[in-house]
Amino acid sequence: MHHLCAELYPICRSITGDGVRQTLEILRRKLPIEVHEVPSGTRAFDWTVPPEWNIRDAYVLDRDGRRAIDFRRSNLHVVSYSVPVHERCAVEDLKAHLFSLPDRPTWIPYRTSYYERQWGFCLAHADLERLTDAEYDVVIDASLEPGSLTYGECVIPGSEDEAGEVLLSSHICHPSLANDNLSAMVLSAFIGAALRAVPLRYSYRFLFAPGTIGSIVWLARNEDRLGRIRHGLVLTGVGDQGPFTYKRSRRGDAEIDRVVAHVMRRCASDAKIVDFSPYGYDERQFCSPAFDLPVGRLGRTPHAEYPEYHTSADDLAFVSPEQLGDSLRVTLEVIATLEGNRRYVNTNPKCEPQLGRRGLYRAIGGNLDREAVEMGLLWVLNLSDGSHDLLAIAERSALPFAAIRSAADALIENALLVPVPES
Amino acid sequence: MHHLCAELYPICRSITGDGVRQTLEILRRKLPIEVHEVPSGTRAFDWTVPPEWNIRDAYVLDRDGRRAIDFRRSNLHVVSYSVPVHERCAVEDLKAHLFSLPDRPTWIPYRTSYYERQWGFCLAHADLERLTDAEYDVVIDASLEPGSLTYGECVIPGSEDEAGEVLLSSHICHPSLANDNLSAMVLSAFIGAALRAVPLRYSYRFLFAPGTIGSIVWLARNEDRLGRIRHGLVLTGVGDQGPFTYKRSRRGDAEIDRVVAHVMRRCASDAKIVDFSPYGYDERQFCSPAFDLPVGRLGRTPHAEYPEYHTSADDLAFVSPEQLGDSLRVTLEVIATLEGNRRYVNTNPKCEPQLGRRGLYRAIGGNLDREAVEMGLLWVLNLSDGSHDLLAIAERSALPFAAIRSAADALIENALLVPVPES
Amino acid sequence: MHHLCAELYPICRSITGDGVRQTLEILRRKLPIEVHEVPSGTRAFDWTVPPEWNIRDAYVLDRDGRRAIDFRRSNLHVVSYSVPVHERCAVEDLKAHLFSLPDRPTWIPYRTSYYERQWGFCLAHADLERLTDAEYDVVIDASLEPGSLTYGECVIPGSEDEAGEVLLSSHICHPSLANDNLSAMVLSAFIGAALRAVPLRYSYRFLFAPGTIGSIVWLARNEDRLGRIRHGLVLTGVGDQGPFTYKRSRRGDAEIDRVVAHVMRRCASDAKIVDFSPYGYDERQFCSPAFDLPVGRLGRTPHAEYPEYHTSADDLAFVSPEQLGDSLRVTLEVIATLEGNRRYVNTNPKCEPQLGRRGLYRAIGGNLDREAVEMGLLWVLNLSDGSHDLLAIAERSALPFAAIRSAADALIENALLVPVPES
Repeated sequence: MHHLCAELYPICRSITGDGVRQTLEILRRKLPIEVHEVPSGTRAFDWTVPPEWNIRDAYVLDRDGRRAIDFRRSNLHVVSYSVPVHERCAVEDLKAHLFSLPDRPTWIPYRTSYYERQWGFCLAHADLERLTDAEYDVVIDASLEPGSLTYGECVIPGSEDEAGEVLLSSHICHPSLANDNLSAMVLSAFIGAALRAVPLRYSYRFLFAPGTIGSIVWLARNEDRLGRIRHGLVLTGVGDQGPFTYKRSRRGDAEIDRVVAHVMRRCASDAKIVDFSPYGYDERQFCSPAFDLPVGRLGRTPHAEYPEYHTSADDLAFVSPEQLGDSLRVTLEVIATLEGNRRYVNTNPKCEPQLGRRGLYRAIGGNLDREAVEMGLLWVLNLSDGSHDLLAIAERSALPFAAIRSAADALIENALLVPVPES
Repeated sequence: MHHLCAELYPICRSITGDGVRQTLEILRRKLPIEVHEVPSGTRAFDWTVPPEWNIRDAYVLDRDGRRAIDFRRSNLHVVSYSVPVHERCAVEDLKAHLFSLPDRPTWIPYRTSYYERQWGFCLAHADLERLTDAEYDVVIDASLEPGSLTYGECVIPGSEDEAGEVLLSSHICHPSLANDNLSAMVLSAFIGAALRAVPLRYSYRFLFAPGTIGSIVWLARNEDRLGRIRHGLVLTGVGDQGPFTYKRSRRGDAEIDRVVAHVMRRCASDAKIVDFSPYGYDERQFCSPAFDLPVGRLGRTPHAEYPEYHTSADDLAFVSPEQLGDSLRVTLEVIATLEGNRRYVNTNPKCEPQLGRRGLYRAIGGNLDREAVEMGLLWVLNLSDGSHDLLAIAERSALPFAAIRSAADALIENALLVPVPES
Repeated sequence: MHHLCAELYPICRSITGDGVRQTLEILRRKLPIEVHEVPSGTRAFDWTVPPEWNIRDAYVLDRDGRRAIDFRRSNLHVVSYSVPVHERCAVEDLKAHLFSLPDRPTWIPYRTSYYERQWGFCLAHADLERLTDAEYDVVIDASLEPGSLTYGECVIPGSEDEAGEVLLSSHICHPSLANDNLSAMVLSAFIGAALRAVPLRYSYRFLFAPGTIGSIVWLARNEDRLGRIRHGLVLTGVGDQGPFTYKRSRRGDAEIDRVVAHVMRRCASDAKIVDFSPYGYDERQFCSPAFDLPVGRLGRTPHAEYPEYHTSADDLAFVSPEQLGDSLRVTLEVIATLEGNRRYVNTNPKCEPQLGRRGLYRAIGGNLDREAVEMGLLWVLNLSDGSHDLLAIAERSALPFAAIRSAADALIENALLVPVPES
């Protein structure tokens, strides 16, 4: 996962442009992503797809002809969506276009100006203070012209069409920033690759799109199929050293919210679970009131709660292979729990069935202890009245979900349990 | 406010009689109160309007012809609704009619006997102990005859008839007691005067009535319009040094309950909020099970929780201009929040609207910080699905109500929000 | 109660057989229990009534002809439902059929094998270690043949047929174990005797049946009358020194759950109240999902939480007359609260009725203090809107149930309250 991050790191991405296309092309080696192009000017609810932005070079030349700021050294140097410039500037005029972090004098900040036509450079504050010439030549060799917005999508079909879809979404619009957002798109691609290898109940829809405008465009183009989305996660910032943070869906008690909370209690007890708020990543759109999709957000330290956020310090050293791997492990556990969670009906609901006669107490192998097995059987039988799902049974019994799931499997085999049809 | 208390203080009020009429006449200088007279004998649910009581003079003469107890020195000396008396009494017989507070030997208690025909005097225990003559002449020059019960009412109309009414009720039946009940009737009159000067959504109905029988008579005469009362407050004891106490309506989660709790958290964090109980002031009647009106009770230290309650020590020095003013300020804040609280529907509920394009991030002035403004806009848009009122949005977002209200105003101006019609 | 335990103690009970019949015969001296016989082979849901088991004698003879293990000394020595045996065994073969408690070397464990045809002996570990002969003669003089399962039932009719029934169930299948289960069957018989002497609203159904198979058979034979069961308790282990443990019904908030919690707070504040789980005694069957009866379980220390459980140490010394008496007292208080709890409607719901006129403030005698009486009247009037029962009023007012019940009685006498018809 870290190698893939490293390969994607140098590319200059924005909300449109060739950087996004190159990124999707690389991710396609891991997952068969379908690439969609949506022309500039296309309406999407209250929004319009902007012109496409591409950049070839940008620099600020001092009087000696040296590149005092050089896009080739870091694509963060140029404010994303800067209009083309080719002019000589007095140093004071230039400084009105420069952004730095006086508190972190060696870090380059990350800035954008998607919907206001501007230009600008970001640089280390130490470098800004070295700009002592009276005049500079400023060049931004970029284009901002009708083109298209690019996003990628991949659907892994499940075995039960009526089970619907799980949406996994990550944004792909940031340039050389490793945790925000390379870590999440790589995690998403690895999850996809893992899921293709196993039988699935749900279909899984992976969305790789630029933030905000990308998800809005996708929602506008897919409005008629949103009813099929049963659960979803926005993935962001999954490579840093912090514990997991899960932000609940707007509903607050959606199945995905319950599943993540359960998995975190077992697998990552230092995880923080926070309520929905309408600020953040693309959950803002998925959870807007007309859609109110059951989509939460999973990541580690939330954006803006670590100083490296949106600076050059969010680099490849900031994300670790261990954390990326741990994020993959936990997310797959969430998915396994979603897959295994279901409501059943006890076919013998009048008194207990005679389990001993069926040899059921010993029917369940594995390393679950015998008491958990027996209690799991009794709990599943007692609460499988059609209104409790297995997760609810696990929570109420304080048994691991795996024990409950195994108990259910044994009971199904003995015709003591049948699934409630998907509604 | 304190001056008005001082002017009202000497009047001998009871549940009927000229003291009530004089009181309303003085309050009318502040608020155009309409005076209602209800004849003795009128039925009101399980109750009957009693005969009217008026008193001119009362005293107990000792053997030297001196007034050992003198109504002219304090109207608390006579048990309210005492029948007329003119007789000589042995001191032991007299003492059966005397009430004092041995624990507080300099305070005169306050006693009534509305529905049992009796007579009596209240006096300082120290004075009672000085009654050493063998006989006394007792005179109560009072009348208890068919007349009427008097109450006052003032309605300040709001701009939206379908919004309904807010009821503000205070009792006016106590003689020279300053906190209980002059403070509240004066607060009510000042609120009325303040509201007449501003545009209002709700109509405001001010009720100045004797306790218990007065509110029962009013309810009986207004039963057909009770459905118009959307919120209400019984005001009592608002001038003492204690923190606010709010007693919830019987419903417990009425909008008035939520509004007062919110305002108290912001304006008077030492306030105590207590559950409804069927004992207290006229909330007992407003919250009787057939009506169950959304009426809470607002005051400072609850009756019977301060020793001065129902004694001569509840005098003008016991209430302070500062506390009266603070009660006015907080009650007007409650009303402002009620006025501003409403449910809206986001007209652009599919994804976020593009706020930047509308300049909305800067559209809200005042001294609210920028982040609160932006978050306020996002919260109002996200939760304005017709089921959350602005107060619920303020609570969930942990933002001040004013920030949420300002955000809603800016969104309304931009046609992004429309009110849910009053039901 | 302890004497009755002592009389029942020596009998060898199992899930069928003459021991059960003798036990019921003795209990019938206290309560007119009707005895039911259900033939072996009868189907009951997923179960079948097993053959009847009776035992006359059993022993293990050493080479000197002495009884190394002797059923006549303790009926725990034989595994319940052991098949008949008459054979000589090598000591190693014998030991495969022996059960002891190495941790408690002087205690005899209690073992059963109802549905697997086996034989075995239980003995003190110290005695097991003394079995040093090479061979032993093993005799179990038992019969396991078609017969019947025996259970007892007694109904004490209440005055209101539409009020339905209260079920009190205890198991009667254990041999010489005092706390589990003599204490509970004796408690049940004493409760029955007490209830026969007083007027009752509900009918009371006492069930004395072998554990699991007995309650399953009873449920199968009474399926059509289960709707009449409004409340129920499984009684077990009520004679040990531990505090009460109440296990809620599967519903968790049934009236019986609320009543027991209320009574415990007042009478046994060290009681533990735990949630339903599908393991335990016959609440497993009563609370199976198709029935979901409002039946909780009342006892003292739960089974398996005391070391004496299912061993010879659960003897007559382990249960005390004081604890048995206390269990009777508390259970009767629960029943009194159930009997007194009901929903009423205030006939004068518009404002308060004039209580003083009716002399109601003084109408209630006893040792309740005056304030509790007055507040009780006001609370009952205010909350008797048909949706609150008296227990809910007691809880919300924080007054004792007895005060609320007395207030309701006084109001009923004054025609201010009428019961909501039983539904």
